Amino acid sequence: MPDQLSITAIEGLPEIAAGDDLGQMIVHAAASQGTSLKNGDVLVVAQKVVSKAEGRVLKLEDVEPSPFARQIGLLNDRDPRLIETILKESRRIVRMDKGVLITETHHGFVCANSGVDASNLPGDGTVCLLPEHPDESAQRIRARVRELAAAEVAVIVTDTFGRPWREGTTEVAIGVAGMSALQDYRGTTDAHGHLLRVTVIAIADELASAADLARKKTSGVPAVIVRGFQYETGDEGAGPLIRGPGTDIFR
Amino acid sequence: MPDQLSITAIEGLPEIAAGDDLGQMIVHAAASQGTSLKNGDVLVVAQKVVSKAEGRVLKLEDVEPSPFARQIGLLNDRDPRLIETILKESRRIVRMDKGVLITETHHGFVCANSGVDASNLPGDGTVCLLPEHPDESAQRIRARVRELAAAEVAVIVTDTFGRPWREGTTEVAIGVAGMSALQDYRGTTDAHGHLLRVTVIAIADELASAADLARKKTSGVPAVIVRGFQYETGDEGAGPLIRGPGTDIFR
Repeated sequence: MPDQLSITAIEGLPEIAAGDDLGQMIVHAAASQGTSLKNGDVLVVAQKVVSKAEGRVLKLEDVEPSPFARQIGLLNDRDPRLIETILKESRRIVRMDKGVLITETHHGFVCANSGVDASNLPGDGTVCLLPEHPDESAQRIRARVRELAAAEVAVIVTDTFGRPWREGTTEVAIGVAGMSALQDYRGTTDAHGHLLRVTVIAIADELASAADLARKKTSGVPAVIVRGFQYETGDEGAGPLIRGPGTDIFR
Repeated sequence: MPDQLSITAIEGLPEIAAGDDLGQMIVHAAASQGTSLKNGDVLVVAQKVVSKAEGRVLKLEDVEPSPFARQIGLLNDRDPRLIETILKESRRIVRMDKGVLITETHHGFVCANSGVDASNLPGDGTVCLLPEHPDESAQRIRARVRELAAAEVAVIVTDTFGRPWREGTTEVAIGVAGMSALQDYRGTTDAHGHLLRVTVIAIADELASAADLARKKTSGVPAVIVRGFQYETGDEGAGPLIRGPGTDIFR
């Protein structure tokens, strides 16, 4: 019997609002399409709905841009209130060039605009911020699935990141609960008995990308079940995915 | 009926040698485990077996290191013949720091060591190079699948790349045949009628990562079938995944 995985979109979730019980809504939506969550599943949830449920949505009219944000906005033909919001979500600017703002978020993620996003939101002039503590967001959803579906699953909260050198975005993990984000093959040997020296796989990012394949970007499918993948349990969250300054040669 | 994909490892491939008909071997291995290739499948093949079949394996004892390679090897405690091989496979050095060599290959991929790799090879002192023309490698496999399994599939040749800022490797596409590597949502609207301005998804990379989940790194599963993903047909290969100098702010 070959190794096989399945990836299933959870459809029919309503528009999410602040205070919604996202875990419950996912469990119900999955059940009503006949794909109930099972032990060992990986539940992959898009950041956007997590942020909405946590009220991480902001009206630009409520933002007062600083002189620096005004200047950056003017130079790059972007809304200075949006720039102000991005700066507030950043702890370091990694690159500012060609109209692109690559920042390090307070969590330590390096991405465009600190993950501040204006798509998939009702009403103009609102923007969505990343969850403040995405690992805790993942943990909360995981706990609700345990309570309501009696299933022990791993949960990954994902966002869409660009990459240097390669065109196009891929989905990556920003919050992880119940599994190890990295799978470490160091010290193991390959089929020829050679040491596999440098193989640490960013398994949570690969799961995030896999889940994205089952998602229809334009019709809003925010949750996906990956079934049949044997993850290692763990409780370190997404932190191990963040490269420290010591080994980062692209700071 | 929700959107569902399956990811299936093709097991039982023998050790691959130069001149082997890799397409035929994959078709046979798939058939003998009862997962024959079907129209619309994406067949994901690891670079290592493609390179082996194409004879892209090299003995270090046959390499004469240049003075520059000797110096770099000495400074970084690495085999100067390996450095020489990496330099020959490079058209540009992107970073050389902390013992890491990030290069741009002749294809245009930016990765560690130009993809030159010493793991999963029989016999010590041999290294594996990337295929010279990975898109053509993918096209050849695709043609053999059409001939032998009467199936119209897309083929992706993948390699394992590290990333700046994030720990762990993910699998990415270096050769593509029969599908568009990027899926372009620009100009389409989201569920709220807003324009999705910057959503171009590196779908071939996401497929590469998804396939990796079904692969047992240490027991050598080089081919994986992703079924149920509706790709856009295309014949531009992996080239569109390579970011040009004009938009690259991390050169």
